[in-house]
Amino acid sequence: MKINGTAFRTIWLAKDGIGVEIIDQTRLPHEFVTITLRSMADAALAIKDMWVRGAPLIGATAAYGMALAAREDATDAGLKRAYQLLHATRPTAINLKWALDEMLAVLLPLPETARVAAAYGRAAAICDEDSAQNAALGEHGAALIKAQHQAKQRTINVLTHCNAGWLATVDWGTALAPVYKAFDAGIPLHVWVDETRPRNQGASLTARELNWHGVPHTVIADNTGGHLMQHGMVDLCIVGTDRTTRNGDVCNKIGTYLKALAAKDNNVPFYVGLPSPTIDWTVADGVKEIPIEERSAREQTHIFGKDADGKVTEVQVTPDGSPAVNYGFDVTPARLVTGLITERGVCAASYKGLRGLFPERG
Amino acid sequence: MKINGTAFRTIWLAKDGIGVEIIDQTRLPHEFVTITLRSMADAALAIKDMWVRGAPLIGATAAYGMALAAREDATDAGLKRAYQLLHATRPTAINLKWALDEMLAVLLPLPETARVAAAYGRAAAICDEDSAQNAALGEHGAALIKAQHQAKQRTINVLTHCNAGWLATVDWGTALAPVYKAFDAGIPLHVWVDETRPRNQGASLTARELNWHGVPHTVIADNTGGHLMQHGMVDLCIVGTDRTTRNGDVCNKIGTYLKALAAKDNNVPFYVGLPSPTIDWTVADGVKEIPIEERSAREQTHIFGKDADGKVTEVQVTPDGSPAVNYGFDVTPARLVTGLITERGVCAASYKGLRGLFPERG
Repeated sequence: MKINGTAFRTIWLAKDGIGVEIIDQTRLPHEFVTITLRSMADAALAIKDMWVRGAPLIGATAAYGMALAAREDATDAGLKRAYQLLHATRPTAINLKWALDEMLAVLLPLPETARVAAAYGRAAAICDEDSAQNAALGEHGAALIKAQHQAKQRTINVLTHCNAGWLATVDWGTALAPVYKAFDAGIPLHVWVDETRPRNQGASLTARELNWHGVPHTVIADNTGGHLMQHGMVDLCIVGTDRTTRNGDVCNKIGTYLKALAAKDNNVPFYVGLPSPTIDWTVADGVKEIPIEERSAREQTHIFGKDADGKVTEVQVTPDGSPAVNYGFDVTPARLVTGLITERGVCAASYKGLRGLFPERG
Repeated sequence: MKINGTAFRTIWLAKDGIGVEIIDQTRLPHEFVTITLRSMADAALAIKDMWVRGAPLIGATAAYGMALAAREDATDAGLKRAYQLLHATRPTAINLKWALDEMLAVLLPLPETARVAAAYGRAAAICDEDSAQNAALGEHGAALIKAQHQAKQRTINVLTHCNAGWLATVDWGTALAPVYKAFDAGIPLHVWVDETRPRNQGASLTARELNWHGVPHTVIADNTGGHLMQHGMVDLCIVGTDRTTRNGDVCNKIGTYLKALAAKDNNVPFYVGLPSPTIDWTVADGVKEIPIEERSAREQTHIFGKDADGKVTEVQVTPDGSPAVNYGFDVTPARLVTGLITERGVCAASYKGLRGLFPERG
């Protein structure tokens, strides 16, 4: 998507054809800094220290990490060592393992001399595939926004939670792909951006990327969505997901469930943008079966921001001695979800709905 | 309530019998500083600059402001001037006007020489009445917590939103009065404290006062309550209210509605603690009729906290150029409210329920 008029992806090959450039997302939203990864170790650090984040972007970075590794040591042993090192950076990230497996499967059958070129080629293809998948998802979702605009003949208000934008993927994003596609097609729209405590991915990343691309938006406290929906100020909600069960239960950033309840109570359509790799066909009941990660309490008690001198500073918001707890995700039951937006189209949040689009699965 | 073992109110007469002492609540939660108000002008500043906040405490401070004014100029003209000045500090605060009217009604019929003593007497009585009212509300609410404990024979988890504790009143609080009464009676309990963005009154004030009194508690993001309720980790919710309609619709801090939806979806009882002056008998439909105050966007884009040097600092969390909006309150429809806890007992959130307890009204 665009940063002040210039098209960007979150990861791209450097001009020398060797290095891999990324945006240092730890510096967002207050600073825009790109970093060139020049070695497998650089790529591992980029994933581990969250210079890159978001499942698809982590996978793409790992793929390029294997390409850099092949330059350093293209033997079977070298590639397998790189696999181990890259996999250990964020061992629970499913896309990371998928990308690494894919790279090994492509490279190991080849002669060592052919591996570097093949690795760069496959890594670039993984990026393009992610972008194309999200673009397709975006077209299907944009049709929903366009239909609302045709019916209402006014600016359409979309509410989103957390960051499921292009910064979490290679390009387009998932929940935000429909927004970008509709905006680029000239549909007048405005996005309510949930701040998304405790890590503030909405206030920092979603606001940042919408602002860069020129999409009208307003940041709100996570508490605000219900009031807006009661007063007809939200036309549809679109969120992302980390994992959706085969029955359509949606695991996403903590607080998603509360917005889905408000949407249901006010007859506001509630959609989830999900590329098909996010569907977990092995799980049925999300509330009962998906373990919810408990993250550091410090994310709740302390907040990063830019101080009066422009310096990024961390401040403590709770009194000394008051404990906090930080659950990262919650599960929105399928009964609250109007539809799932995938790269193959929109379906009901149900096994039947998902099987209809993905008959080869289940 | 107690601060590290010592009983406090939020406002009290100084040892000299003239000055009025308050806690500077703008310094909370990181610093505990008391201020002695020595003039009517001091009292006006304390209200205007929010050294004191919360409707009942504002009323009590205004009452003492009239006593200080009577010392300065006990003539009719002097008292009326003081009324105007104090009323202008926060013109929309209903308790402020009520307390000022009450003081004038008591003082004007008296000879000037009797007014100072009468003013101090009535101000003290206003404080005692607020404390007694909340204590009674607390006993009725504590019975609900005790009943849960008897049934479940384990620690009872209460979820609250914003600050409706003793710091917002003279003593006991409203939503938290049942918690303090139950805790002081030895019922094992634990409070989930919603951070309450954007002003963080939960993370700062509620956490601060529960910590001081020794009540076990945990601060959570406003996004978290739904997940906790899905997993049986909340036994009941108790919140305060700024204004409740005669039909039982509850206007309270933004985000209350979302928690009430989650409580309903998970069969968790949702109660509102409200001293009867909070009932607005002139309004029926809260969602349609109550105008919602829009506050400064800066409360959303910037956050105060304690930096690494222990200094209270303001940081910006949103990117430059991203607008924000800040609605202060929302309305929870009566259908989502299990019961209203008043100083006369607990009733259904309905006109019939409220009339049953307050037959002289409506």
